[in-house]
Amino acid sequence: MKILVTGAAGMIGRKFCEALARRPEIGGASVDKLTMVDAIEPVALTGASFAVETFQVDISTLSLAERILSEPPDILYHLAAVVSGEAEADFDKGYSVNVTGTQKLFEAIRHAQNRPRVVFASSIAVFGIPFPEIIPQEYIPAPLTSYGTQKAIGELLLADYSRRGFFDGIGIRFPTICVRPGKPNKAASSFFSSIIREPLNGQTAVLPVGDEVRHWFASPRAAVAFLFRAGAIDLRDLGPRRNLNMPGVSATVGEMIASLEAVAGPGFAKLIRRDPDPTIQRMVDGWPRRVDASRAKELGFSADDDFEEIVRHYIEDDLARKSTVR
Amino acid sequence: MKILVTGAAGMIGRKFCEALARRPEIGGASVDKLTMVDAIEPVALTGASFAVETFQVDISTLSLAERILSEPPDILYHLAAVVSGEAEADFDKGYSVNVTGTQKLFEAIRHAQNRPRVVFASSIAVFGIPFPEIIPQEYIPAPLTSYGTQKAIGELLLADYSRRGFFDGIGIRFPTICVRPGKPNKAASSFFSSIIREPLNGQTAVLPVGDEVRHWFASPRAAVAFLFRAGAIDLRDLGPRRNLNMPGVSATVGEMIASLEAVAGPGFAKLIRRDPDPTIQRMVDGWPRRVDASRAKELGFSADDDFEEIVRHYIEDDLARKSTVR
Repeated sequence: MKILVTGAAGMIGRKFCEALARRPEIGGASVDKLTMVDAIEPVALTGASFAVETFQVDISTLSLAERILSEPPDILYHLAAVVSGEAEADFDKGYSVNVTGTQKLFEAIRHAQNRPRVVFASSIAVFGIPFPEIIPQEYIPAPLTSYGTQKAIGELLLADYSRRGFFDGIGIRFPTICVRPGKPNKAASSFFSSIIREPLNGQTAVLPVGDEVRHWFASPRAAVAFLFRAGAIDLRDLGPRRNLNMPGVSATVGEMIASLEAVAGPGFAKLIRRDPDPTIQRMVDGWPRRVDASRAKELGFSADDDFEEIVRHYIEDDLARKSTVR
Repeated sequence: MKILVTGAAGMIGRKFCEALARRPEIGGASVDKLTMVDAIEPVALTGASFAVETFQVDISTLSLAERILSEPPDILYHLAAVVSGEAEADFDKGYSVNVTGTQKLFEAIRHAQNRPRVVFASSIAVFGIPFPEIIPQEYIPAPLTSYGTQKAIGELLLADYSRRGFFDGIGIRFPTICVRPGKPNKAASSFFSSIIREPLNGQTAVLPVGDEVRHWFASPRAAVAFLFRAGAIDLRDLGPRRNLNMPGVSATVGEMIASLEAVAGPGFAKLIRRDPDPTIQRMVDGWPRRVDASRAKELGFSADDDFEEIVRHYIEDDLARKSTVR
């Protein structure tokens, strides 16, 4: 089976490819070849039992389409995206990669005519306030960012291309991924990872919002498991609604900090410095606190049990093993 | 005030332009110039007190953008679309006009930098089964046609371009327009108009579905009134959710036929020949029966009182006056 992953140099893409090297099968079918695609040259995998090629390309250009036409994958994982902060700062780049790039990729798959499975990484960013405390599965995607808009458009295209029989698509709406390894980035959500990661690394973290802030999380390990599951399930069970809320852990900042201390020991929370930022507080107040993921759960998707497990997964996967992820 | 209407040669576009000629103001501001744009050369308006120009152009090409940049409108009515039957039959044409064309138009408006009002014609085709008997305002657009997908994408773009301040947009989700003047077309919904229009013209109509079928309607006169209202209301009241379900009349086929006889007299229903078509019945069974339009009503949008009024509007506007609409 041939797998193609876009965004393979990204955090989740990289972890997924590494997991494939350790466990080279999806849904009982073994992986023969993996093509890692990213705008940044992906570092080649080591220790994989299957062929690996890397391909550095902007997905909004046509050369990826040619590659797909010459060697169509059996499963395409479309994870590449301009992330939320950048899509908001650079309107043209966000639409070019996240909408035009996705359209070109889907068109290439359509014209390859081998009707593969397409797994599309969407996000809870498709939701914007107001929404109920638990966002229902049939709630309108009314995003309040360009990134969320672009993901919602990708979901619509995925469903229509699937309905037309051009490919067999499944869209997975990721929770906020936490704890992200590496350094803080400029995303407004960056502090969610920082307040766990930095103390565990003996560093100070800044907390710009109140302890009562509640949000929806999954660990990188759970995110990788979603990708395996999305590649494995029988898509005939899905019907025309192809985009699924993924399960996650709903936790307040206060609960996150308590989990850090419960797992790592008392004292770590002292490294968290409270420095309220009204701008970030206002943004975060508009983010989902909990989503109904019962369809995904019925289909065998599962997330971390609780936030303590999320902390443990970071310690095991990234702190102890020294992550290879940028 | 300069008005630009795309789709000006279409049924609603034409009626709206004719109504503007009779009542050349929107929201208290008088119309100085009307630009009628369509893929088919629009027939020039007669009797207008303002300047009228017609422009035949495919909106997925760039020449409309140049026109907009050289003379930006104060209100853009974007009604042009490849209709549902054609968008399903010709996948590429539907996406080219309904998505790429809409994107190019929005980009032209963005670069003109005059931040006009944009009124976007959407449709209840954004909804696909399953849905509740009355579709809530916050229900997910999960379309089951390429046309509905393309309209849902247009809605998302409209909301994001508005949020970013590139223009001030409002999307109006039209009910099925009934009674359409003219001849039956190939749309699966064509019979809804035929069973009223053909008997009133002394002709036989074919009814392919059962009398119990319920659907959501507005007359062409109500549709034109929606467009005037969308041009007039204070969009600051709208918030980030820019796309509104329009009010309509929920009626069964049986109620439609009873209305025909109540308005026109007994005997007309004899011209309706029942010829069940399971394919059409199955399609129509997946169409909205009633939508919650309370936000639009609060903003002053109103539809016909009942189906009898819809029949009377057809008689007054098209049967008696001999419509100029193709």
